[in-house]
Amino acid sequence: MKLIIINGPNLNLVGKRETDIYGTTSFEAYFQMLEERYPDIKFLSFQSNSEGEIIDILHRYGFSCSGIIINAGGYSHTSVSIADAISAIDVPVVEVHISNVFKRETFRHKSLIATATVGFISGFGLDSYRLGVEALIANNHR
Amino acid sequence: MKLIIINGPNLNLVGKRETDIYGTTSFEAYFQMLEERYPDIKFLSFQSNSEGEIIDILHRYGFSCSGIIINAGGYSHTSVSIADAISAIDVPVVEVHISNVFKRETFRHKSLIATATVGFISGFGLDSYRLGVEALIANNHR
Amino acid sequence: MKLIIINGPNLNLVGKRETDIYGTTSFEAYFQMLEERYPDIKFLSFQSNSEGEIIDILHRYGFSCSGIIINAGGYSHTSVSIADAISAIDVPVVEVHISNVFKRETFRHKSLIATATVGFISGFGLDSYRLGVEALIANNHR
Amino acid sequence: MKLIIINGPNLNLVGKRETDIYGTTSFEAYFQMLEERYPDIKFLSFQSNSEGEIIDILHRYGFSCSGIIINAGGYSHTSVSIADAISAIDVPVVEVHISNVFKRETFRHKSLIATATVGFISGFGLDSYRLGVEALIANNHR
Amino acid sequence: MKLIIINGPNLNLVGKRETDIYGTTSFEAYFQMLEERYPDIKFLSFQSNSEGEIIDILHRYGFSCSGIIINAGGYSHTSVSIADAISAIDVPVVEVHISNVFKRETFRHKSLIATATVGFISGFGLDSYRLGVEALIANNHR
Amino acid sequence: MKLIIINGPNLNLVGKRETDIYGTTSFEAYFQMLEERYPDIKFLSFQSNSEGEIIDILHRYGFSCSGIIINAGGYSHTSVSIADAISAIDVPVVEVHISNVFKRETFRHKSLIATATVGFISGFGLDSYRLGVEALIANNHR
Amino acid sequence: MKLIIINGPNLNLVGKRETDIYGTTSFEAYFQMLEERYPDIKFLSFQSNSEGEIIDILHRYGFSCSGIIINAGGYSHTSVSIADAISAIDVPVVEVHISNVFKRETFRHKSLIATATVGFISGFGLDSYRLGVEALIANNHR
Amino acid sequence: MKLIIINGPNLNLVGKRETDIYGTTSFEAYFQMLEERYPDIKFLSFQSNSEGEIIDILHRYGFSCSGIIINAGGYSHTSVSIADAISAIDVPVVEVHISNVFKRETFRHKSLIATATVGFISGFGLDSYRLGVEALIANNHR
Amino acid sequence: MKLIIINGPNLNLVGKRETDIYGTTSFEAYFQMLEERYPDIKFLSFQSNSEGEIIDILHRYGFSCSGIIINAGGYSHTSVSIADAISAIDVPVVEVHISNVFKRETFRHKSLIATATVGFISGFGLDSYRLGVEALIANNHR
Amino acid sequence: MKLIIINGPNLNLVGKRETDIYGTTSFEAYFQMLEERYPDIKFLSFQSNSEGEIIDILHRYGFSCSGIIINAGGYSHTSVSIADAISAIDVPVVEVHISNVFKRETFRHKSLIATATVGFISGFGLDSYRLGVEALIANNHR
Amino acid sequence: MKLIIINGPNLNLVGKRETDIYGTTSFEAYFQMLEERYPDIKFLSFQSNSEGEIIDILHRYGFSCSGIIINAGGYSHTSVSIADAISAIDVPVVEVHISNVFKRETFRHKSLIATATVGFISGFGLDSYRLGVEALIANNHR
Amino acid sequence: MKLIIINGPNLNLVGKRETDIYGTTSFEAYFQMLEERYPDIKFLSFQSNSEGEIIDILHRYGFSCSGIIINAGGYSHTSVSIADAISAIDVPVVEVHISNVFKRETFRHKSLIATATVGFISGFGLDSYRLGVEALIANNHR
Repeated sequence: MKLIIINGPNLNLVGKRETDIYGTTSFEAYFQMLEERYPDIKFLSFQSNSEGEIIDILHRYGFSCSGIIINAGGYSHTSVSIADAISAIDVPVVEVHISNVFKRETFRHKSLIATATVGFISGFGLDSYRLGVEALIANNHR
Repeated sequence: MKLIIINGPNLNLVGKRETDIYGTTSFEAYFQMLEERYPDIKFLSFQSNSEGEIIDILHRYGFSCSGIIINAGGYSHTSVSIADAISAIDVPVVEVHISNVFKRETFRHKSLIATATVGFISGFGLDSYRLGVEALIANNHR
Repeated sequence: MKLIIINGPNLNLVGKRETDIYGTTSFEAYFQMLEERYPDIKFLSFQSNSEGEIIDILHRYGFSCSGIIINAGGYSHTSVSIADAISAIDVPVVEVHISNVFKRETFRHKSLIATATVGFISGFGLDSYRLGVEALIANNHR
Repeated sequence: MKLIIINGPNLNLVGKRETDIYGTTSFEAYFQMLEERYPDIKFLSFQSNSEGEIIDILHRYGFSCSGIIINAGGYSHTSVSIADAISAIDVPVVEVHISNVFKRETFRHKSLIATATVGFISGFGLDSYRLGVEALIANNHR
Repeated sequence: MKLIIINGPNLNLVGKRETDIYGTTSFEAYFQMLEERYPDIKFLSFQSNSEGEIIDILHRYGFSCSGIIINAGGYSHTSVSIADAISAIDVPVVEVHISNVFKRETFRHKSLIATATVGFISGFGLDSYRLGVEALIANNHR
Repeated sequence: MKLIIINGPNLNLVGKRETDIYGTTSFEAYFQMLEERYPDIKFLSFQSNSEGEIIDILHRYGFSCSGIIINAGGYSHTSVSIADAISAIDVPVVEVHISNVFKRETFRHKSLIATATVGFISGFGLDSYRLGVEALIANNHR
Repeated sequence: MKLIIINGPNLNLVGKRETDIYGTTSFEAYFQMLEERYPDIKFLSFQSNSEGEIIDILHRYGFSCSGIIINAGGYSHTSVSIADAISAIDVPVVEVHISNVFKRETFRHKSLIATATVGFISGFGLDSYRLGVEALIANNHR
Repeated sequence: MKLIIINGPNLNLVGKRETDIYGTTSFEAYFQMLEERYPDIKFLSFQSNSEGEIIDILHRYGFSCSGIIINAGGYSHTSVSIADAISAIDVPVVEVHISNVFKRETFRHKSLIATATVGFISGFGLDSYRLGVEALIANNHR
Repeated sequence: MKLIIINGPNLNLVGKRETDIYGTTSFEAYFQMLEERYPDIKFLSFQSNSEGEIIDILHRYGFSCSGIIINAGGYSHTSVSIADAISAIDVPVVEVHISNVFKRETFRHKSLIATATVGFISGFGLDSYRLGVEALIANNHR
Repeated sequence: MKLIIINGPNLNLVGKRETDIYGTTSFEAYFQMLEERYPDIKFLSFQSNSEGEIIDILHRYGFSCSGIIINAGGYSHTSVSIADAISAIDVPVVEVHISNVFKRETFRHKSLIATATVGFISGFGLDSYRLGVEALIANNHR
Repeated sequence: MKLIIINGPNLNLVGKRETDIYGTTSFEAYFQMLEERYPDIKFLSFQSNSEGEIIDILHRYGFSCSGIIINAGGYSHTSVSIADAISAIDVPVVEVHISNVFKRETFRHKSLIATATVGFISGFGLDSYRLGVEALIANNHR
Repeated sequence: MKLIIINGPNLNLVGKRETDIYGTTSFEAYFQMLEERYPDIKFLSFQSNSEGEIIDILHRYGFSCSGIIINAGGYSHTSVSIADAISAIDVPVVEVHISNVFKRETFRHKSLIATATVGFISGFGLDSYRLGVEALIANNHR
């Protein structure tokens, strides 16, 4: 089983900045824990601040891997084009957010992306990614 | 560890009606699977079609159990009072939905409840409840 | 043929209060007239001020009677959950209102309930219920 | 007793086109059934695609017949002027729709016309017209 | 003189939870103070988390007592049906809130309930109830 | 000097119906008074309930008379096409209303027509037409 | 007969500034013409940039003169308080504007003031004031 | 104890005009009753139709008296600047209204002022001022 | 192959009025060019200012010709009924506009008509009609 | 004559994915057909998923080619910056869409891009590009 | 060179109140620093809480000085009339704010005033005024 | 002291295109003037049309330079992600615009970016950048 994790804008700073919102663990450290916890899964992780590159990655892996976990950051609320990319590809995609978007500014309360994904997970810190992994494993077994 | 699952309006019909949206497993059968999968957790499950009763249950268990998983159904989008109840209690609450609310009618795209919960999980069928359990276990270990 | 009439909040006061809007006949007296006019139909009538109880009644009768006439009162404009209940059951449901909701305050101009019912009848005084009966008889013959 | 039925835009195509929405009976055939069912009522029926002509007909019959049943089609949602015409005339007017407008596009969920009519009936197929007749007979006896 | 106080959802927790918003006095203790301060008034107090039960109480006392003080909590902003119940009864009703709703989230800035009450008092802590009593005494003397 | 008066939908009923809003003088009687008061002006008057016919009249006279006074009735608030017709013609057009539209329903508070006319006069009963005549005379002398 | 003309903010600059919108005649010169044209009417004219002073003037003259013509300038679109003042006084008030407000920015398309005045005249240059005088004379003769 | 009462626009007419809304007692007479009922409190009362003057008064007394009762009239719904003034001063301010603003036009249903005051009292006639006094006395004792 | 061109309100003035928006060629001259350029196609052209007549023409030709090109003018933005007519007929319909509607007033930025047509062409002057012809030829060959 | 075709996000998947919306011909195959049909025109084609790259291409060719055809995909509805780029360049730009955007989700019904282009063509499948070519040829000959 | 600084409502309290938002320097002290820093410029400074007085000052100096710096405080967001005054005068006007209005309540995010000024500076504490001076000097040299 | 200037989409065309809005000086020429005027400051300047690249630059310099001046062009109004990047970095950021955004289309009147910056400067031509430099120098000295 091969899962892709796509991190959108500013998520390269997780664990380093705004730790009251995003916590103090870096995504790299977290990613290693994830690989250890799920030794049977091959994980690939990408981060990009560019809407276009995120679409490129979705196209590249969207027809061959077992599933994609995307944290589109700020693009979650504004990007018709990433949602369109997710609709166009084959593999199941799960949207995750580290913070609970419903507890933040109103413009973060809606997700354009989730209109195209299997599901939406928000608010559990970095653990949101693992819940996404769990959801894709279960989805795979169905 | 003791977890409470609260199901809101119409969720007593899960597995029996509108199976294209909610699947064919009844919640009772699913609940049994959950108990078997997590033998160390004591689960209690409630279903009510009444906004007031849901608040009563939140008050009753909200100061003593280890966490609550709530699927508030249609009240997710309209109930200020359930959100207030969740804000008032002590234990962590996770909101879950069987279907992906962002793929349905626009009035289901926002959650009033999630403004008060730890997090929000939507779209994974009955597996959403298990993801909620996983989230609360992880939350407990933090 | 067996028809259920469900009256929502405040409709227990019909004929007694606000008679300029709702008229001077009590629902009980009207119900008796209805039974006399349609001797071949068995009628059952419920009134509840509680959204949850209305859903309970819809679940209880919604798989076995010939049709349901619902006047959801103020819940017509706000209850996602009653609409969900009507979508979940089998029998045809007709929404009726005593007053013409389009002639009253703007927040009464839309019906959430009617997005799930067969049809909508509003403005004919208590006669709205009889029109609902007529509609369900015709629906039954089709 | 003399009743006028006014059909607005595109209703000349009923029974011929879009039969999934409007059914397969033509209005002419239905009208004949109506005349047979209510032999004591003199019915007149008009169809026009023009907002102005509909107003003309309302003015012509609105002071002398026993009641008017109007299906204003698409003008139901946009015509201030037809609503004004109904307010200006004497006889009771009932608005009917073949389909349940609340189940269709959002812009069909409100009726400008019904702010001026006695009542509103929607969703019972061609039977909506008969329910309108029943409502006007009852109105006449009051 | 007999006054009824109705407390809506979550108000059973006053004095125990969210004391930064609602203060540290329990309603029970406050109620006793109120009885002592106004020995000539017979007070009855009810609390319910259910919209339907609040309507039931309004119907039960709304034709015979001297006045009602209602703190509808979260239902203040969403309940058409409670507002309808207040319009339907005879005795004067005053809406009170412990916190100043205009200082909280925008969705708390409007009151549906107050469109039907004599007046609206908000922001004085538990003293809002006493001001409601004062208003009803003055209203009674007019 | 030759002035055209165009009356839109339902204005043929002025003086006969809804006299609390429109007064008891018929437009025909008023028109005669106008002719007598301004003997040097040739007046032509048209009434139509049809948006299309009103546009036809605007086209027919809009390049040759001295000015046009239009009371577009309900079309004032909804007709892009009449506004377009007024923009397309040469002669000055004044919009008038018998009632003060700002004192009526909210949907009458804006005029699409007036975005294309010289000016807007509303609220003076039938005298609004005379004020329109005065405005066009003055406009002519400039 | 005694008429008061009240000019609101910036109207002291008429004829001097923004002459493409307001023309090149000063209000003072125009006022003199008005006095000459209507020798039987006593005119008083006030200009103030202050909302409060405009209310003061309305109170001072609003119970004793024959009518008031107000050009509230920018306050037309924002002042609840001037509208309230007009509702509170006895004499008829007419709102006038030099430019056609419907041809300018959207925020000028509505008048709060006109919800309280007899009528509304807009777009005829300074001649709007004379049309207001004509309207008040006619109103006086009725 | 020294309390300031500030009355905003048009409140000088209370008791004289629109007595169906505001009653027949003048504020002066009422003020005298207030002084008699609370002999230990020194009251000062101001009325101004000007937003700026109201801010001036708030600044003048807002750092030295025991509390301020403000009825900002129409400015309640539109004045950011008065709300800012109240936020800037030291003493507690209570907003009062004679009528129940929630029963009047929609634009009166929100208070900008109350976002800065201790609380809000509306609908009790002139007695609203006394309730404001009671609230400030209680606030003082806390 | 037989194509119908329907021109809506004010399009009879093309080439004569507002030539900065619509150009200086009359539609008649353009139509002749079109006939010469496509000698194998039989063209019929209609113009009407009436919404109802446009619907009549759509009904008359909508079941027998090869395709329809409609420029509904101002009705494009407001007519539910023309859109309904296009949905009801058989032949492909293309909506065209001479000007680019997205460059004009906001209320012209949406097309109700195009929700029912094959496609939408706007902004190419009279050449928009030829592009519509090209589109229908290609559609025919598919 | 040299024309540039710019395809925005996800259009690299045309003919391969979501063929019910976009058809089964790949853009590459279509592009070859276009080159064959118009041998006198030099075509260049670009595809990018990145908003910034699309702007770069517009700048690179926007001052020297004969015209640009842009299908901005999802950016059509959200990109102020692409619209600004089109306003800033010299050559005529035509916006095209394969599907009829007015028949899809509401958020696709408006085009920010088209506020800056010559015109807008939507709904003709890949033929929309050829219509764009035709439009630019005609534009060139004018 | 002569520059006018106009401070609107509540700005007399700068440095004294709400120092977390506005800082601890009084405007008087700051003004002196400004005079010292720009010895070649003659500064005049006015403060008023009254919308009308601010307009008066704009009129008085708006035709003769070298430029005006206005901090309209709360009127920035609501005053059509101050914006109109700025449009009517000759000299360049710059709007400044001490706090960054985009970081405060949503109703402060728009400036009506800035639609008429040369530019807008917000967020630099009292230094915003100096930046306004710099902007006007540069503007003068152009 | 080291300052970074980031120019967003289309700003590479400044001085070359749309000179009525942006003036005739190129940014390169202006930048040289800036370097000469502030010899003690090290300036770096970047231009990118890509949202993602702008975020990359903010991350690269946002923890080490003395301040950043950003003109995000069209992204100012739509980019949640650039605002998030600014919130995440350490150094002070000032948003500048060449034109006065409040004088342009409505969708340019709000800045998402400025909700995260120190301040906002708009409307002073290229001089806006220098004012940003001045603001950062002053900010540095505080």
